[in-house]
Amino acid sequence: MAKASIVSIGNELLNGHTTDTNATYICRQLLSVGVPVVSVYAVGDDISKIVEALKRAAADGDIVIATGGLGPTDDDLTRQAFAELLKTELILDERLLEGIRELFKRRGWSMPERNRVQACIPKGAEAIENPIGTAPGILAKTKGRILFALPGVPAEMKMMVENSVLPYLRKQGSSEWTVIKKVRCFGAGESAIAEKLGDLMRRGRNPLVNCTVDTGVISLHVIATAKDKQQAEVMAERDIEQLRAILGELVYGEDDQTMAEAVGRELARQRKTVATAESCTGGLVAKLITDIAGSSDYFVGGWVTYSNKAKVERLGVSQELIDKYGAVSEQVAAAMATAAKRIAGSDFAIAITGIAGPGGGTEQKPVGLVYVGVSSDNDCQTERLMLSGSREMIRMRAALSALNMLRLKLRG
Amino acid sequence: MAKASIVSIGNELLNGHTTDTNATYICRQLLSVGVPVVSVYAVGDDISKIVEALKRAAADGDIVIATGGLGPTDDDLTRQAFAELLKTELILDERLLEGIRELFKRRGWSMPERNRVQACIPKGAEAIENPIGTAPGILAKTKGRILFALPGVPAEMKMMVENSVLPYLRKQGSSEWTVIKKVRCFGAGESAIAEKLGDLMRRGRNPLVNCTVDTGVISLHVIATAKDKQQAEVMAERDIEQLRAILGELVYGEDDQTMAEAVGRELARQRKTVATAESCTGGLVAKLITDIAGSSDYFVGGWVTYSNKAKVERLGVSQELIDKYGAVSEQVAAAMATAAKRIAGSDFAIAITGIAGPGGGTEQKPVGLVYVGVSSDNDCQTERLMLSGSREMIRMRAALSALNMLRLKLRG
Repeated sequence: MAKASIVSIGNELLNGHTTDTNATYICRQLLSVGVPVVSVYAVGDDISKIVEALKRAAADGDIVIATGGLGPTDDDLTRQAFAELLKTELILDERLLEGIRELFKRRGWSMPERNRVQACIPKGAEAIENPIGTAPGILAKTKGRILFALPGVPAEMKMMVENSVLPYLRKQGSSEWTVIKKVRCFGAGESAIAEKLGDLMRRGRNPLVNCTVDTGVISLHVIATAKDKQQAEVMAERDIEQLRAILGELVYGEDDQTMAEAVGRELARQRKTVATAESCTGGLVAKLITDIAGSSDYFVGGWVTYSNKAKVERLGVSQELIDKYGAVSEQVAAAMATAAKRIAGSDFAIAITGIAGPGGGTEQKPVGLVYVGVSSDNDCQTERLMLSGSREMIRMRAALSALNMLRLKLRG
Repeated sequence: MAKASIVSIGNELLNGHTTDTNATYICRQLLSVGVPVVSVYAVGDDISKIVEALKRAAADGDIVIATGGLGPTDDDLTRQAFAELLKTELILDERLLEGIRELFKRRGWSMPERNRVQACIPKGAEAIENPIGTAPGILAKTKGRILFALPGVPAEMKMMVENSVLPYLRKQGSSEWTVIKKVRCFGAGESAIAEKLGDLMRRGRNPLVNCTVDTGVISLHVIATAKDKQQAEVMAERDIEQLRAILGELVYGEDDQTMAEAVGRELARQRKTVATAESCTGGLVAKLITDIAGSSDYFVGGWVTYSNKAKVERLGVSQELIDKYGAVSEQVAAAMATAAKRIAGSDFAIAITGIAGPGGGTEQKPVGLVYVGVSSDNDCQTERLMLSGSREMIRMRAALSALNMLRLKLRG
């Protein structure tokens, strides 16, 4: 079975300012095509250290993936390190140079002379196209090892892994396949879910069922290993079905589906529309909904009514209601949701009002108190949440809870 | 100058489920006492791999910090790896055993037999107390190297770094201090900025000036090393001033300040307010503004006018204008900004309309075309952007460009 090793390059990884999330991503992606990563080396922008790390990585694995150090500045040394390792020289690739010039032109700039170096690759190596950045990647072979150099910019690195590295490795064939599928849940804690699943989460079981948590979203990773891909997929699917049966409406989606995506898909399927009226989340719900391409089919628009004045003037929430119950109240959440649905002419509206902190809390209405309203043709449902954590966490939890309420409503 | 190397231990670091944030934390902490980390090795729960990584780390640095693998289960192998490296045996430390028993007792449990192994440390090494967990750390010396083994649980690791590792290193009398400051820029590419800075970014210079990029935001890290902290700070400050002088209005902030924070601070200082009207960014600008606690002082609210209907009905943009120029046009961006300012009664308004993709592009108006408008009492300025990358990147770049326009306007 082929194994891989990763070399992460850049001073920023060693001075405590950047966490190496690229390595995590690559580990996961490679495992999905049956290639486990056995070591990760992080080194600074130092040519001898980079070459040494590449050599160690090539001793550990059949496949070496280097990230970073492909930029245009003097401390970008991965190209040279590859050339040194391959005992060859860098040559200018005219086609790559044209591509980089083109990218600058599209941005309305002319290419600085210094970017020319990005079109150089070691003699005998192949370039990997970078449609969204100026740093092409490199694919080289030496002594039975396959070496990739990818940019350190996460979006560019990911695009190359998906479009070039994974297809290449799949073609190579592998004796064992690992399939990872995920089930995404919302509405219960990690330990409550672990209790429901019991023996399914046993260590050493195949498929292995792991659990990670992120702002209330519980992801259950089903990792199935088998002789071939189809068998691994069948094993994973069988577990996914079991998880769905046990967890019921807690499951909102699979794999990397976001809550907004799941809600959006259901809205589109039912040909329904939604509007938003946000106070403490300040546009976050609308942002999450419109993260999804094609959301214009079901999202008509929204209001960020951050001040009381905006709630009164934009949505017609009555000043008396705000004076009587406060802006953070069930009554105001309901009034916002009802008004947003009516004015926007949508089938549903989501409203949120709360105290995200860190300031602004009182004894009666502490930081983390959030009211969510979801209005439909039939009624307006509200929910009181008491959330903890940072401002960012409170806002995200509130937004996800609101979307989850709409999801459950759409389930009927 | 003493240097350090980190060994991160655990299968979870290699299967793509855990990102090694421990290494980032340790890098930052060690640098603050003048000990730079020169390499990080991540390996799985395999005794020979761990020993090999420890040897490599001891070759790279005077100080080796290992994290993980100190738990009570069979795959926790760091204790044995240390013993093997030190060519000695593990011995049971009765005092440690008592401490672990005590911890279980406090939780109302009796100690499982399997936890006994956590009280074992290599002969001749010192134990590091763990007041909040069952895994004690290890401090060992061999061949002029100092080796620490710390738990992988972040809270326990951090407590040991602060209470044991840093005091130990400070006592060793580090002869040097390192101070890191950042300058954050927007509005020019990495290579253009590098060209302006020239010799300031020279490798080996002290302070060292490094550059990282994230969605158009260029961060210049100034890393100053000196005999004492004050001197390092003076050196860093001097460079920061120089960078500010050279880069002028490209600099929007320092350290971890976001663009929205910089704009918000300036709005608050000038006692001005802003409203937003967003199409393709779908609430992202409002979200970024309200990420900042206290933004209610200057943010009155906003509209997400995702559909044309919403642009017409909410903001009174004329249907004729949309028919004539298209929703993605300079004219519509200006009309949205002007209307948002007027209706909200704010001092400024930001408007964005564009094509975030991946669908919806045409030859005349391709994906990535975005118009931004900023209206003030005096005028309404617009800008045409041609952005590339994923939907997420296009939206973020558009939002940051709009905030940056407002920032420059506020500078006068």
